[in-house]
Amino acid sequence: MFSQDFRTVGIRGILSNAYHLSLRPGLEVIERHGGLHGFMRWNGPIIVDSGGFQIFSLAPLTSLNEHGVTFRSHVDGSEWFFSPEEIVRIHDRLGSDIGMVLDVCVPYPCEESQVRKAVEQTLEWAERSRKAGGKTLLFAIVQGGTFPHLRRFCANALVAMGFPGYAIGGLSVGEPWEEARAVLAEVLPHLPAQRARYTMGVGTPQELLMYVSMGVDFFDCALPTRNARNGSIFTGKEKIAIRNACYAKDERPLDESCPCRVCTTHTRSYIRHLFMAKEILATQLATWHNLSFFSRLMREARQAILNDAFVEFKDRWMERYKWDE
Amino acid sequence: MFSQDFRTVGIRGILSNAYHLSLRPGLEVIERHGGLHGFMRWNGPIIVDSGGFQIFSLAPLTSLNEHGVTFRSHVDGSEWFFSPEEIVRIHDRLGSDIGMVLDVCVPYPCEESQVRKAVEQTLEWAERSRKAGGKTLLFAIVQGGTFPHLRRFCANALVAMGFPGYAIGGLSVGEPWEEARAVLAEVLPHLPAQRARYTMGVGTPQELLMYVSMGVDFFDCALPTRNARNGSIFTGKEKIAIRNACYAKDERPLDESCPCRVCTTHTRSYIRHLFMAKEILATQLATWHNLSFFSRLMREARQAILNDAFVEFKDRWMERYKWDE
Repeated sequence: MFSQDFRTVGIRGILSNAYHLSLRPGLEVIERHGGLHGFMRWNGPIIVDSGGFQIFSLAPLTSLNEHGVTFRSHVDGSEWFFSPEEIVRIHDRLGSDIGMVLDVCVPYPCEESQVRKAVEQTLEWAERSRKAGGKTLLFAIVQGGTFPHLRRFCANALVAMGFPGYAIGGLSVGEPWEEARAVLAEVLPHLPAQRARYTMGVGTPQELLMYVSMGVDFFDCALPTRNARNGSIFTGKEKIAIRNACYAKDERPLDESCPCRVCTTHTRSYIRHLFMAKEILATQLATWHNLSFFSRLMREARQAILNDAFVEFKDRWMERYKWDE
Repeated sequence: MFSQDFRTVGIRGILSNAYHLSLRPGLEVIERHGGLHGFMRWNGPIIVDSGGFQIFSLAPLTSLNEHGVTFRSHVDGSEWFFSPEEIVRIHDRLGSDIGMVLDVCVPYPCEESQVRKAVEQTLEWAERSRKAGGKTLLFAIVQGGTFPHLRRFCANALVAMGFPGYAIGGLSVGEPWEEARAVLAEVLPHLPAQRARYTMGVGTPQELLMYVSMGVDFFDCALPTRNARNGSIFTGKEKIAIRNACYAKDERPLDESCPCRVCTTHTRSYIRHLFMAKEILATQLATWHNLSFFSRLMREARQAILNDAFVEFKDRWMERYKWDE
């Protein structure tokens, strides 16, 4: 999608990633454009993740110590070193509106001793990030795997340092839905309600509504666009696989209740054909709709909160939706 | 590109293909949408090629005789039979504004005797197509390979039958540029100037300007979009390979003289980055620009003709352009 079209589908802010951008195209290229807003030609808010998650999942790790993390680029194998202070500097160079601190991520499942060490390092780095200053609004990240006491410990320690916003990281890494929900139920009461509370890498419509009801303020996720590229389309009733033969002659829009440009123009039949013929336009149309769908879901949730009617909104939505995951 | 954006880049008519659409998604699906205009949601003119070229190049051929051609689908191997009359019916079912007759295509190079047979069959089928009636404006196709006398013979015979437009087919199939030019020089004087003269499957900016100067009225080609997908970008000075390292820090637009949405927004540096990162957006931006480039080239050529200044326009353009092909 063109960055000029984000607002058309209702998107008011986007997420980017310091790890990915440092490796490719490199900060110097982005700085020449006056930062990430100029590079992408997007003048709305940009949250930039530190890339802690990517370093610990995508990149072959060389070493991790108190100073920082040394890793090899997954693009060209070159060696890199990131410290908490370096990430703060990168946010300044990118012009991030909100920058995430560098954290230490653990896989799922993971030994308690390893999770504890990651939490301790994450806390020390959060403090160093805060002290490093910079122009970016820095958000801390609560780690602690699926261990309630470690999550609680991490949250309380970060709140004591005082950040303008707090993210809950290390979810959506393969753990069962109930465990993720339990982590949030444990952590959220320890984060100040007057500060932004952000759940990273989430989620499905049901996760979003559930977590909003628990007090989460914002989310980021590749799911709407990744699903779109695979032909998974969200509707107000269910998620559909548009490649299925049953849609070959379906002249309805992707989602009958959706007012987006794609749903007011094209049929399921046409879009299925584009997917079968491997036309790039298929992914463009599906991406446009899925992003419209999620931005409308969240817009309606915000409106329901303002109307003091969120619980009713969520219950009605959940009842109407056919769960398959 | 969304069909609603064609006009934004200056495109007033598009080409489609009876062979491809018959095989996938099938005519029944398209008819349910009220024809191809409804299926694609494009209300401008659509020329529909018969698919003669595709049948003789993509599809495993089963048999060719006076009745028509039997072939296997390149998509699923199913057997199909197309006759000239069937193609006319397909044009009616699709709602083609201009429909090309079914022709017999030969490869390059090709024995004279085989080309002669193809021409004779093409002529017989053209006559049968004309008699089949239908609602579509039918254009005939001049074949004859690179044999001047066969081209001349085919053109004269088709003109004697009387069509509203004539296409020159069988070019851009691997023959040297000089041979294609010689074919056009041979054929064009035999086609009535007050009828549309159309060169199929052409071409580069230099071919377009050259052939316009010889009297060709219109063209179709996959080159602007296929090149875009490969990162080949047209500018008023030369064709550039945007993936090249020299564009990594190039903050100029793709084409400094282009007023399109992409060139007024993004830098070469940004678009190169998108190509290197394999972002779908790279092909979207490149496609948008290349189509804007070609539609502007032709719009300016039309204006120059109206101003009686086409030769000057063409010479100036050719002089400015750095040829590499």
